[in-house]
Amino acid sequence: MDKITMITLMYDFYGQLLTERQQKFVELYYGNDYSLGEIAENYGVSRQAVHDTLKRAENILRNYENKLGLVHRMLVQRSKLAEAARLLEECDAPLPRQVVRAREIIQEVLDMDRG
Amino acid sequence: MDKITMITLMYDFYGQLLTERQQKFVELYYGNDYSLGEIAENYGVSRQAVHDTLKRAENILRNYENKLGLVHRMLVQRSKLAEAARLLEECDAPLPRQVVRAREIIQEVLDMDRG
Repeated sequence: MDKITMITLMYDFYGQLLTERQQKFVELYYGNDYSLGEIAENYGVSRQAVHDTLKRAENILRNYENKLGLVHRMLVQRSKLAEAARLLEECDAPLPRQVVRAREIIQEVLDMDRG
Repeated sequence: MDKITMITLMYDFYGQLLTERQQKFVELYYGNDYSLGEIAENYGVSRQAVHDTLKRAENILRNYENKLGLVHRMLVQRSKLAEAARLLEECDAPLPRQVVRAREIIQEVLDMDRG
C-alpha cells in the first residue's frame, strides 16, 4: 500500500486525536493535494513549519496504529469480505434474492471503510 | 448493550493506550471476574485505589470511543454482516459451494471482533 493511502486510512481512524491544526494540514496536503508552499501561504507560516507539523501528525498516527493496529484489522476484514463478495458474484444466475441482498450488504460494509 | 460488554469491547480496541496497571486491573475485574477486594489484596493496595484505577481506565476508554467511534462502527458493520449471514442461511439447499464459502468467510470476519 502506498504511503498516501496508508496515511489517509490512519487519519480516518485516528485523526480526531490530532490537534485542529494538524488535522487541517493533513486534510489539505493528503486529501486536497495542496503543496507545502500553498498551505504555508494560507496560514502565514513557513514551508518548514508546515512540513514539521505534517511529519509530527504522521508520527502520531503511526504510533496509534502501531499500538492499536485497527487499520490493519480493518484491511484484513476488508480483504476477506471482498473475497466473499467475489464468490457470491460467481454464482450462476438466477440468484436467490437472499444472495443478491447479502452481496449488497457486504458492499455497504466495504464502503464504510473507504480510505 | 450492557456496561461490561461495552467496556470489554472498548478495551479490545483501545486497551493498549492504558497504563500497564490499568490494563491488568481491567482484565482481572472485567475479564476474569475478580472482585475489587481480591485485586486489592493481590496488589497490596486499598480497595478504593483499585476502584479509582478502574474508574479512570473506564473514562479513558470512553473518551477514546467518544472521539473515534471505532467500536460503534464495528458494531454497525457486525450487525450488517450478521444480516448477510442470516440471508445466506435462508437459501434453499443444495447451496452452490461459493455461497457456503462466503458464509464461512463472513463468520470469520464476525469472529475477529468478538468482545
